[in-house]
Amino acid sequence: MSNAILLAPGPVQLHPEVQKILALPMIHHRTPEFDLILRRVLENLKFLFQTKNSVFIHTATGSGAMESALVNLLSPGDEVLCIISGKFGERWAEMAEVYGAKVHRLDVEWGYAVEVEKVEKILLTNKKIKLVLTQACETSTATTQPVQALGQLVAKTTALLVVDGITAVGAFPLPMDQWQIDVLIAGSQKAVMLPTGLSFISLSEKAWKISETATCPRYYFDLRKELKANKNGETLFSSAVPLVRALDFILSRLKELGLEKHFAQLRRRADFTRDIARSMNLTLFSKAPSDSVTALQLPASIKGVELREQLEKKYEVTVMGGQDKEKGKIIRIGHMGYIQDYQLVTTMEKLALALQDQSYNINPEKIKNESEAWLKARPQ
Amino acid sequence: MSNAILLAPGPVQLHPEVQKILALPMIHHRTPEFDLILRRVLENLKFLFQTKNSVFIHTATGSGAMESALVNLLSPGDEVLCIISGKFGERWAEMAEVYGAKVHRLDVEWGYAVEVEKVEKILLTNKKIKLVLTQACETSTATTQPVQALGQLVAKTTALLVVDGITAVGAFPLPMDQWQIDVLIAGSQKAVMLPTGLSFISLSEKAWKISETATCPRYYFDLRKELKANKNGETLFSSAVPLVRALDFILSRLKELGLEKHFAQLRRRADFTRDIARSMNLTLFSKAPSDSVTALQLPASIKGVELREQLEKKYEVTVMGGQDKEKGKIIRIGHMGYIQDYQLVTTMEKLALALQDQSYNINPEKIKNESEAWLKARPQ
Repeated sequence: MSNAILLAPGPVQLHPEVQKILALPMIHHRTPEFDLILRRVLENLKFLFQTKNSVFIHTATGSGAMESALVNLLSPGDEVLCIISGKFGERWAEMAEVYGAKVHRLDVEWGYAVEVEKVEKILLTNKKIKLVLTQACETSTATTQPVQALGQLVAKTTALLVVDGITAVGAFPLPMDQWQIDVLIAGSQKAVMLPTGLSFISLSEKAWKISETATCPRYYFDLRKELKANKNGETLFSSAVPLVRALDFILSRLKELGLEKHFAQLRRRADFTRDIARSMNLTLFSKAPSDSVTALQLPASIKGVELREQLEKKYEVTVMGGQDKEKGKIIRIGHMGYIQDYQLVTTMEKLALALQDQSYNINPEKIKNESEAWLKARPQ
Repeated sequence: MSNAILLAPGPVQLHPEVQKILALPMIHHRTPEFDLILRRVLENLKFLFQTKNSVFIHTATGSGAMESALVNLLSPGDEVLCIISGKFGERWAEMAEVYGAKVHRLDVEWGYAVEVEKVEKILLTNKKIKLVLTQACETSTATTQPVQALGQLVAKTTALLVVDGITAVGAFPLPMDQWQIDVLIAGSQKAVMLPTGLSFISLSEKAWKISETATCPRYYFDLRKELKANKNGETLFSSAVPLVRALDFILSRLKELGLEKHFAQLRRRADFTRDIARSMNLTLFSKAPSDSVTALQLPASIKGVELREQLEKKYEVTVMGGQDKEKGKIIRIGHMGYIQDYQLVTTMEKLALALQDQSYNINPEKIKNESEAWLKARPQ
């Protein structure tokens, strides 16, 4: 499977240097050597989040950081507004209910961005809403939400804007402080380009104040204790040493390259994917497409589950299908991770072949030529 | 630092094959390839736990699995008995209090095993106790608790025996079903010989029944949902692919070798450590010493914090000191992980030198000779 291509919206392909670092001999997390690494990582996470606030590391998946956001901010009975435009919006709502919140649902058609005016109206009529929960990119639909506008809106209220940036932070601009995001979370296996296993969270000053009075029980995800530990150059619990060392490499590299240049690389890949999809007469599922992942609407004649399976088995390309109600209807191609342009080109060529296998009217040769023209035109 | 030795009670040195596996290219966790691995790992975890019950994987440290045990079993107001003989016993109590339990403390002098009669007396006079929380090995003191006897005792009551086996499962016998353990947890970076990042938990039938009525809110650690996901060959949230693949290797290897043979290897190392310590006129801190880690009492003249630091800086050997009230007073040497005998021998030789550096009356040459005699006498 060494030539297999993995272009899912996480987990993502790893940088060869990350692979090397993961294989290094173990060191203890309570040593001067690791202390140095951890302090640098905690500092550089602020760069990634574009914030002056502390950013915390949980040894957990992104969902763990979502839970962390809730248990650090909620008291049972609190009212929250969930912007729900896909599977992960549903997760916010489910999770908030479990932790005793009264959930106001703002259902948005899958693939669409929320209308900020609707959020404004709800916040105006319900002053009790304490948290506005959204995704920056809803992974299940490859759709971005208007976080900047939401930030402006929520900043004028007593509520907090809580943003799941799992498929966003490190993929496209999401400056926490400038956009007035109160809580921002991210996960390691997406735009942070590492394996699954770490997630990240940061709280604004406004959010810290709320967290002081929140009564939800918390221990594993208790950020008050994590903050104290971090000040001593430690994480609260054992550190996942290989991942933190690899994170150190990723963050240093991002700092060296600059976020803007890095974002431009993803945008270039996303633009190509969207362009070539149009050449294939496929439409974008998303009305507000993300640069981290592209969702393509499959024609009604195509069996989507089979298509994805064929891509994997016959063509050695792993992309993702739709989830929940979009299962079998869309195909999702990730742009995050260590991707070589030819791998994306190959993926689109194989997609054309797999569509043709299902008698879709397509000219794979034309797709191949257009893809290769893009490859040749790439900036040096 | 490539020749540095890490003999801490977790994280531990890695098998070279584990290092290689961690560096493999990423695969997605929702693929037939990973599905096969996960199903085999879930089956082999039952072998490790010596249980017919399902064993679950959390992407979290051992403390995450401790939290999982509590939130899956507790309802606020429940009474629990904590056997507290060190830092991690304190953690049980702290955590249970956070989740609304009424905590009965059974304080045991650090380094000692609990007297089972005392537990019996408490359970007889307080029928409301729902959970008995203990460590199999209290990592902070390298001391085992009498889990088998506790299992016999608690099985006769309506209470559940909840065992933190983080520094125990895979290091010495702890057969879950045979010893009537209701909840057993383990962590990846200890006797499971992987990096930090995964923890494991299993519930007896008796515990499952209690979990059905437990009202503690839970989402990330919800074992009811995890069980459903596992039945479909998936974990509830993204799988930490590299760790699960490495776990597959470790478990397959343990199955091939057999647990008894594996335990004997640790016992041999622990026995040597205890013997050579006696030659150094050091006493064991623990009255019920564990085969997973040995704690040596330092003479009053020795500055323990400096000793540990010197071992690390001057001698390139990482062992751990004492924690909390034993800080600076003991030294802890781990026996888990991929250890070559000569590394343990070197560690003890360096310890002798570091003690001599602090004017302790010791003959390093004698220690060296005895150690090398042990090396030569090792079974082929």
